[in-house]
Amino acid sequence: MSLSPFDFVSPLDFRYYGPDERLRELPAPYVSESGRVRSEALVEAAAVRALADRGMCSHEVADEVAAAAREVSPEAVAEEEARIHHNIRALVNCLREAVSDEAKPYIHLCMTSFDVVDTAVAWRLKQAARRGIIPELCALQETLIALARREADQVQMGRTHGQHAEPITFGFAIVGFVSRLGNRIEAIAAAAEGLRGKISGAVGAYNASAIFFDDAEAFEAEVLAQLDLLPSPSSTQIVEPEPVTDYFHALTSTFAVLADIADDMRHLQRTEIAEVGEKFEAEQVGSSTMPHKRNPWNFENIKSMFKAFMPRMVTVYLDQLSEHQRDLTNSASSRFNPETIVALVSSVRRLNRIMCKLVTDTARMERNFEMTSGMVAAEPAYILLAAHGHPDAHETMRKLTLQAQATGRPLWELINEDEDVRPYLGNFTPAQIQMLKDPKSYTGIAARKTRQLCDEFSARLQAVRARIAE
Amino acid sequence: MSLSPFDFVSPLDFRYYGPDERLRELPAPYVSESGRVRSEALVEAAAVRALADRGMCSHEVADEVAAAAREVSPEAVAEEEARIHHNIRALVNCLREAVSDEAKPYIHLCMTSFDVVDTAVAWRLKQAARRGIIPELCALQETLIALARREADQVQMGRTHGQHAEPITFGFAIVGFVSRLGNRIEAIAAAAEGLRGKISGAVGAYNASAIFFDDAEAFEAEVLAQLDLLPSPSSTQIVEPEPVTDYFHALTSTFAVLADIADDMRHLQRTEIAEVGEKFEAEQVGSSTMPHKRNPWNFENIKSMFKAFMPRMVTVYLDQLSEHQRDLTNSASSRFNPETIVALVSSVRRLNRIMCKLVTDTARMERNFEMTSGMVAAEPAYILLAAHGHPDAHETMRKLTLQAQATGRPLWELINEDEDVRPYLGNFTPAQIQMLKDPKSYTGIAARKTRQLCDEFSARLQAVRARIAE
Amino acid sequence: MSLSPFDFVSPLDFRYYGPDERLRELPAPYVSESGRVRSEALVEAAAVRALADRGMCSHEVADEVAAAAREVSPEAVAEEEARIHHNIRALVNCLREAVSDEAKPYIHLCMTSFDVVDTAVAWRLKQAARRGIIPELCALQETLIALARREADQVQMGRTHGQHAEPITFGFAIVGFVSRLGNRIEAIAAAAEGLRGKISGAVGAYNASAIFFDDAEAFEAEVLAQLDLLPSPSSTQIVEPEPVTDYFHALTSTFAVLADIADDMRHLQRTEIAEVGEKFEAEQVGSSTMPHKRNPWNFENIKSMFKAFMPRMVTVYLDQLSEHQRDLTNSASSRFNPETIVALVSSVRRLNRIMCKLVTDTARMERNFEMTSGMVAAEPAYILLAAHGHPDAHETMRKLTLQAQATGRPLWELINEDEDVRPYLGNFTPAQIQMLKDPKSYTGIAARKTRQLCDEFSARLQAVRARIAE
Amino acid sequence: MSLSPFDFVSPLDFRYYGPDERLRELPAPYVSESGRVRSEALVEAAAVRALADRGMCSHEVADEVAAAAREVSPEAVAEEEARIHHNIRALVNCLREAVSDEAKPYIHLCMTSFDVVDTAVAWRLKQAARRGIIPELCALQETLIALARREADQVQMGRTHGQHAEPITFGFAIVGFVSRLGNRIEAIAAAAEGLRGKISGAVGAYNASAIFFDDAEAFEAEVLAQLDLLPSPSSTQIVEPEPVTDYFHALTSTFAVLADIADDMRHLQRTEIAEVGEKFEAEQVGSSTMPHKRNPWNFENIKSMFKAFMPRMVTVYLDQLSEHQRDLTNSASSRFNPETIVALVSSVRRLNRIMCKLVTDTARMERNFEMTSGMVAAEPAYILLAAHGHPDAHETMRKLTLQAQATGRPLWELINEDEDVRPYLGNFTPAQIQMLKDPKSYTGIAARKTRQLCDEFSARLQAVRARIAE
Repeated sequence: MSLSPFDFVSPLDFRYYGPDERLRELPAPYVSESGRVRSEALVEAAAVRALADRGMCSHEVADEVAAAAREVSPEAVAEEEARIHHNIRALVNCLREAVSDEAKPYIHLCMTSFDVVDTAVAWRLKQAARRGIIPELCALQETLIALARREADQVQMGRTHGQHAEPITFGFAIVGFVSRLGNRIEAIAAAAEGLRGKISGAVGAYNASAIFFDDAEAFEAEVLAQLDLLPSPSSTQIVEPEPVTDYFHALTSTFAVLADIADDMRHLQRTEIAEVGEKFEAEQVGSSTMPHKRNPWNFENIKSMFKAFMPRMVTVYLDQLSEHQRDLTNSASSRFNPETIVALVSSVRRLNRIMCKLVTDTARMERNFEMTSGMVAAEPAYILLAAHGHPDAHETMRKLTLQAQATGRPLWELINEDEDVRPYLGNFTPAQIQMLKDPKSYTGIAARKTRQLCDEFSARLQAVRARIAE
Repeated sequence: MSLSPFDFVSPLDFRYYGPDERLRELPAPYVSESGRVRSEALVEAAAVRALADRGMCSHEVADEVAAAAREVSPEAVAEEEARIHHNIRALVNCLREAVSDEAKPYIHLCMTSFDVVDTAVAWRLKQAARRGIIPELCALQETLIALARREADQVQMGRTHGQHAEPITFGFAIVGFVSRLGNRIEAIAAAAEGLRGKISGAVGAYNASAIFFDDAEAFEAEVLAQLDLLPSPSSTQIVEPEPVTDYFHALTSTFAVLADIADDMRHLQRTEIAEVGEKFEAEQVGSSTMPHKRNPWNFENIKSMFKAFMPRMVTVYLDQLSEHQRDLTNSASSRFNPETIVALVSSVRRLNRIMCKLVTDTARMERNFEMTSGMVAAEPAYILLAAHGHPDAHETMRKLTLQAQATGRPLWELINEDEDVRPYLGNFTPAQIQMLKDPKSYTGIAARKTRQLCDEFSARLQAVRARIAE
Repeated sequence: MSLSPFDFVSPLDFRYYGPDERLRELPAPYVSESGRVRSEALVEAAAVRALADRGMCSHEVADEVAAAAREVSPEAVAEEEARIHHNIRALVNCLREAVSDEAKPYIHLCMTSFDVVDTAVAWRLKQAARRGIIPELCALQETLIALARREADQVQMGRTHGQHAEPITFGFAIVGFVSRLGNRIEAIAAAAEGLRGKISGAVGAYNASAIFFDDAEAFEAEVLAQLDLLPSPSSTQIVEPEPVTDYFHALTSTFAVLADIADDMRHLQRTEIAEVGEKFEAEQVGSSTMPHKRNPWNFENIKSMFKAFMPRMVTVYLDQLSEHQRDLTNSASSRFNPETIVALVSSVRRLNRIMCKLVTDTARMERNFEMTSGMVAAEPAYILLAAHGHPDAHETMRKLTLQAQATGRPLWELINEDEDVRPYLGNFTPAQIQMLKDPKSYTGIAARKTRQLCDEFSARLQAVRARIAE
Repeated sequence: MSLSPFDFVSPLDFRYYGPDERLRELPAPYVSESGRVRSEALVEAAAVRALADRGMCSHEVADEVAAAAREVSPEAVAEEEARIHHNIRALVNCLREAVSDEAKPYIHLCMTSFDVVDTAVAWRLKQAARRGIIPELCALQETLIALARREADQVQMGRTHGQHAEPITFGFAIVGFVSRLGNRIEAIAAAAEGLRGKISGAVGAYNASAIFFDDAEAFEAEVLAQLDLLPSPSSTQIVEPEPVTDYFHALTSTFAVLADIADDMRHLQRTEIAEVGEKFEAEQVGSSTMPHKRNPWNFENIKSMFKAFMPRMVTVYLDQLSEHQRDLTNSASSRFNPETIVALVSSVRRLNRIMCKLVTDTARMERNFEMTSGMVAAEPAYILLAAHGHPDAHETMRKLTLQAQATGRPLWELINEDEDVRPYLGNFTPAQIQMLKDPKSYTGIAARKTRQLCDEFSARLQAVRARIAE
């Protein structure tokens, strides 16, 4: 088969995961067809090694098979599969071909296809998390932490319903994503650790392996230990599906956090808001007919990828169902699961690239703040009045606010003039009065909390990195 | 970029749409990256042709651009895009490079990127339907019609809730799918006809083209007519999204029909039922450890592909939303839409291959029928008793049925002996009595309806074929 | 059972469809449990009427059953169902109880439960469309048409990627929704017409009815004609599922259009944009702690309802699959389908209420326009230069635009001063020069197209109304 | 408002959660509108208690508010909301009305609406898990454990692809569900513990509370501790959405396990298989026209509910996105989340009811086993031959199996006669030879593993119960 990339149907292979070779470095070995074959060969080799450890064959045999597994060619396996229409048997045939007659009988002994397939899936997903997804997320997390620290004190108007609400700092807005992303990274790590393999035979009852071993479960554990996996607590022809479901849930819910960041950043780039910007390269064209435009297309892309891949969780949930000791209606569908990994990693890298060079227009941020800063005092005023015993503070402030909007006068002036309110003002502290006059100081603990969360999640980031480096 | 197929992430490109070259024949030109570039070049050429028809440039210029469009290399466009990060501008640059200075200014004149992109999408989807999806579905439909005719009189037990219900014929079971598939083929054809293009500029108000033409909408129609498309009734930067939504709804709901066929066939292959079989090739291996197994893996594959691709409608619905005159959060996501076409076509071909060689085990079908044929008479007995004035026919038959189950005696005998029922039997016709004794004749109009629907849908199939051949 | 509304789990029944009695008027009779029972009784009565028309029973019997069907109490049916655990048999028992002994045997004769259930579903969905969904959508459509006409000439900056793009009018932005909504209304009407009933017995082969009638299909057609329905082309125990799938697709894709309108309106209400507003009632509280806020919560609600109900299409697609002559795994799930009707109607009403009182802040719209109007000329300038033979117009304008941004000078001045560009300006018409100086006139055919689409869709609206009033 | 249950749109309130009063016992207080109001009142009371603990008001004031919160009438709050269109302000007004003037100012002090709403959501979801979902799942788990123990030694044919594969025991088939369900129960418990509240004000920066408290985060923790909740690590106007996402993922993936059990059981009830049965009540009607049918409608219902509720995870994922410090497009949608709890609990109860009275037809199980028992020996024969050095054991057995199928002769006879194979048989142990002759002993460790998993999950069940009883 000779296929130009331009014949690809998959935008992933062509557009999002393809052209940039560096992109492919990781987690490529765990998500490609080639990675599939190689990981399945690893499982076959681990099984023979376990037989050798138990003295059923020599260690030379196990070495032979291990070598064959390392060198097996995905092309050769594909050719054999085209002939016999069974992918694992094709792999077994290829491995047998590569070893001595002595070794041949021990390959795939006591195993069913899905012992190999499902164990290899667990191994690939775990490795993809450890070597691809989590490291990339950690890199993004570092960028966000640095950004949050940089902007910890930069006052920004907080927005709810797209309306100005109460003041925050821009760093505080960012550190919320640091917290959510940090928690998701740990969720992915936990889900990856939860993945399970199986060497329990065609219907999960260890029918075949129990012929040889009284302790068939121990044999299973020995095979899997070589691949850094634990056995599924129960199995049929396949492992319990829930660990894989949990894993893709962890990825999908992480993707939503990325999309949420992207949404916020692109809205902050709206012409009328323009508080942040994505640096453009000199040669880059913003629009084919509107040469003046600078579009937040990278952020838009991330949101778009989320919309493309999130619904695939429906497939994952459907694939939890399999009739009796399994039917194969989850086989083709689950082959598409690694695409979600690639889409996520590619979006994480993209987001990291952009957030690294995120520009803040602080002048604009402050100008926007001024638009409504006069009204912001309404909340602290209402609260302070209530706290000082005003019987109907909320309603009073609501009316003063409407008056301020109608007259265009600063809310503080109206508060100060109001006969009903003035008596209470005497009990306010100077700092409280100042807060009503200049709401820029009404940012609560935004700056402090930003730094505190940056410190906490920096530490947790190091802990995750240490864990996956084990 | 040099990428071995074994580095692919996409199982579509590698496994389901790749290895078999014949598979790629159609609708490949409409679903690949290469097809995208070529179709966009066609739109650019059509626009220049329309300019020439209006005398804005010479027909030689239009010819030049048409030639450049035919010969543009996707590789060159990709290279240019890597440089300037804008795919349509990259195409325009490549086309300009290939034509004379006289022709250069007319390329992409009055157009915005999405005039090209969205029009090309509509063209590709329409062609994919006409040249790929519908022809393949028609081929499957012919197979099903032939099968339904062949089995029109073959009595089979109808099943509801997985329980034996009332008799049908196997052809009748198949012809239900003929009807549903036939209706879906027409739905796809209608949806493909409903696709729309646009040449209305950056925000849909014909800002640019109205500079030149008082009848900017007429110009749009002239460009699109060359591509056998009508203009979107309104547009922003993009066409109204609903025609594309309708198109993928038609495909997805068709996919569900395939999955339903596949489910029925694989359940009819259950060891305990075994009424139909999928012929296996001599060399084919059923299971790596259970050499005796013959698994309905092709049917399972089709159901599995449905589970993988159906949830993508969620993305299509989400992509109907685009802020103001459009945001780009539906760009990356919609690039994956053609994968659904490929998955569907590949499943249609697979199903056709299998249904062509579907084997019916009529002996088994009849043996299964016998299991409960004694009970089947309960329904006609109850209905006839009611029709002949029995005041409580349903309850009476329910009790006789329980008695038949408890004693193992044929229901007919118990009916015949029942003091309460016997008086009514005298009024039954001999044919009705015969039906109670031998329920094989209790198939209603199954055989007649099968032939009638085969005739009707054969005719409609020819009509669809004629329509898309226009 | 006595259940306070405050014990409800369903926010639909309590919050969105409950408190306002007027809301319940329509399509309530077609979506409630009570409506289900009544419509099923209608089917039973129609079947007896058809028997009478064929002389199998007297017309008095048919009248008796029709009266019983009109008066059947959902409460009584529910009680009977609690006893015998079968809902249609419960209905039949209740009807039989209400008629003379002569009439009893003709009730439910030749029918299976799902003849009644599925036919009644088709009837309810069709009536809900005709009497609830479409009238409400038409009311909204009228509001939008009036708004589009009112704002046909109001210049607004068109936005792509959240960035200022090229000018439109606000009426033009609205009329795009008029077109999309108008097309969807017709799609719903068509889908409602496509709904089908069935009287073909337990497995669809007319086993029971063929005992009595040589022309069992004609009998089916006679029953259904009374309910203004056509028969399903084929059926098993149930009608072909695709018409119902198409119906909910039409609703769901319509919901997306509402959500898109809501998104645009709420973004136009952002503090920094503030071009439109939703009138607030005097007593209404915007925020519990921020008395100055006026939140676009109605628009947010509509988007939110779309997010809640759109994914239910996944269920509808899954329900297209049913094993053999049917399994019941689509029974409970399809009972939730009417909730989508209620959610849609409730959102249409809400949107209509708000759009009726949508306030445009034209001063703000123009102020926003001014922000970038100097840059807008880039597109016409580039196009005119290209049209007048400039060899590299796009690149030239891209650079002038950057220069304008850097220096803050109007783009027109820079164009006018540019040595490379100036020679071409002489060939521009005065109107073209004026367009470069004042881009407010660069709205293409926005205003004209707005009026033209308003006229067209007003006419089509009347046509739909006439059709459903038949 | 007076609404008969028969006017309900929601099948949940009417059909699945309504009529049976016992059903409503739990988790009703946590999922209804009434539960919402009461839990929000609890949060308001907890906040005043925390103020009192800090000496800002008297404990008498806190007692007053607590009493008002306990007694607040959902009806009164609804009325007030109808007047002022803001649900939390309505609650606050009602509470204020019920307390002395001294207490009034402390109600809702320093809080924003979503401090109350989101904290109350977390509290309700956690309580629903502890008092409703988990106890019900534990009851089901006990039923499954008892069933698995009862059937631990009952030989059954294992099935893959719907085909007979290798032997298991029926208890082993059940215990796989015990393991999966046990793991899900713990996942739900963990997700419930992970839910978080917040008292951090309108934009999450503690703007209001920091006016009063230097340690605003400590104040938040004090309020939440009274509700057995921890604070969200970060918050905007709302808590981090991921804990709620994880919670509904845990429920949805649990629902899939129920659906998988239901699928297996209903397929085992197929007429041709009939290994298990669902006991029918004496009065129950199986089919309205086929009195002899006994349909697995309860199992079908559970699968159907899964299909109805699983896609709602799409909404939950979409609701993770909220613009800036929040927009309200996740408000209406998230109000539907409790419906999933009700659907799940109702399905768990239904499944438990049925599994309690699941009947096994052991004679039929054994008869089915016999159908293919002669072929089952193929797997152990192939493995033993391979283990004893046969160079091509798989291919050899594949051919012998085909021969056995063609001739109808027992596989063992053909093995024993085969010249190529016979030499190896001498090395087999008597137990191995016996296994080839009678494959009923070829069940691996099915029985032992069944008991072992029953023991393990019984213990873990007690641990979960102890944990939620704390």
